[in-house]
Amino acid sequence: MEHEQQAGIVEPRSVEHNGPEPVTELLGAIGYAELVAGLRMAADALTAPALDVRIWMGRSAGAELEHFERIAGRLRDMGRDPEAAMAPFTGPVDAFHERTRPRDWLEALVKVYVGDGIARDFYREIAQHVDQPARDLIESVLQVDAQEEFAVRAVTDAIELDPTVAGRLALWARRLVGEAIAQTQYVALERDALMGLLVGGEASEVDLADLGRMFTRLMELHGERMARLGLTP
Amino acid sequence: MEHEQQAGIVEPRSVEHNGPEPVTELLGAIGYAELVAGLRMAADALTAPALDVRIWMGRSAGAELEHFERIAGRLRDMGRDPEAAMAPFTGPVDAFHERTRPRDWLEALVKVYVGDGIARDFYREIAQHVDQPARDLIESVLQVDAQEEFAVRAVTDAIELDPTVAGRLALWARRLVGEAIAQTQYVALERDALMGLLVGGEASEVDLADLGRMFTRLMELHGERMARLGLTP
Repeated sequence: MEHEQQAGIVEPRSVEHNGPEPVTELLGAIGYAELVAGLRMAADALTAPALDVRIWMGRSAGAELEHFERIAGRLRDMGRDPEAAMAPFTGPVDAFHERTRPRDWLEALVKVYVGDGIARDFYREIAQHVDQPARDLIESVLQVDAQEEFAVRAVTDAIELDPTVAGRLALWARRLVGEAIAQTQYVALERDALMGLLVGGEASEVDLADLGRMFTRLMELHGERMARLGLTP
Repeated sequence: MEHEQQAGIVEPRSVEHNGPEPVTELLGAIGYAELVAGLRMAADALTAPALDVRIWMGRSAGAELEHFERIAGRLRDMGRDPEAAMAPFTGPVDAFHERTRPRDWLEALVKVYVGDGIARDFYREIAQHVDQPARDLIESVLQVDAQEEFAVRAVTDAIELDPTVAGRLALWARRLVGEAIAQTQYVALERDALMGLLVGGEASEVDLADLGRMFTRLMELHGERMARLGLTP
């Protein structure tokens, strides 16, 4: 791996207008999030009770690692070192996963379905504010997984078999969302350039109401997904 | 996923000339091996001490899951259910990984490098005996990973830092090879169709000397890889 000397790229806190470009930061954040999501899901797949679940989770993990691969490729095309671009985000992303370890494969399935869904909606919001090549890339990783039906069926089947499962999984999904929001806010507050992207302007002009409206939209879409799983948001 | 009713495909032991086609068996075996290799490597990547190692292992895991995806796609094109084709091989493949759990990321790196290498050489031998579409597919998953240099450098660096590491890793590699051979022989003996492929003829005409010569070739290539790592085969 190359340790390119790119002043500012791995700096934990950048001075406004003098730090890394927002697009580099964004791709670094999404890239690392996709890498770890893929690795975690793969590790969880090894605990799956049956071959069909293992295959489904393996395919989902493969899709996320492929997204990571494409994002790293785009960073290289931009003349950026993917490792340096991702480094600032290892803390929050790792913390999210440390705090949301599934206790069984059903919780792992919900984590994939709910987590992937929120991530996709979030990327879609952000894609409105970046340049065309980055937008094309982000939109290309948004394609809905044809295998998604699998998670819905597995969760609804499990609830039918044992209705008490619904309460546990609803609680679990709420924790996932809470941790995701906490870590995202932490990243946004620490990284001025990214914060600017989130609200579609300069960090100095951050409109917290805009940010609030975006979270509201994300939560509405999340609620619809929970309903499809047969869970109370 | 569909549970297609395909008599014979998941039968643990087939009667000669009346079992599944050799190509279906072969793709099932390779497909499951690639799936689990990718999942295990991803799980090991989470224990990596540094971001560069995690990225390298994540990329390798992604490549293996992509191979799995393509093999499953080919099985579907052939009108076979990938899950049914892979089911007979979960036992031996899982047993191999249960018996070769890396104790640290350095052992995990050696497992990837040595294991991937042997698997590639093995597929190359087998590809000589299957039909054109299957051969094309197998050869396309043989492309050498451009990232391979990473493993060589990481292992040689670690040995330079602490020469006693060389003995431990050489012993580890020998165990990997021993377990791989044991499980492969187990599969070949249980699955007549595959055994026929291995020696390029019908199972009834199995020439054990041919099989021996193939293992000899595989071990020679393995020895060259070990030398590149700075290890005694």
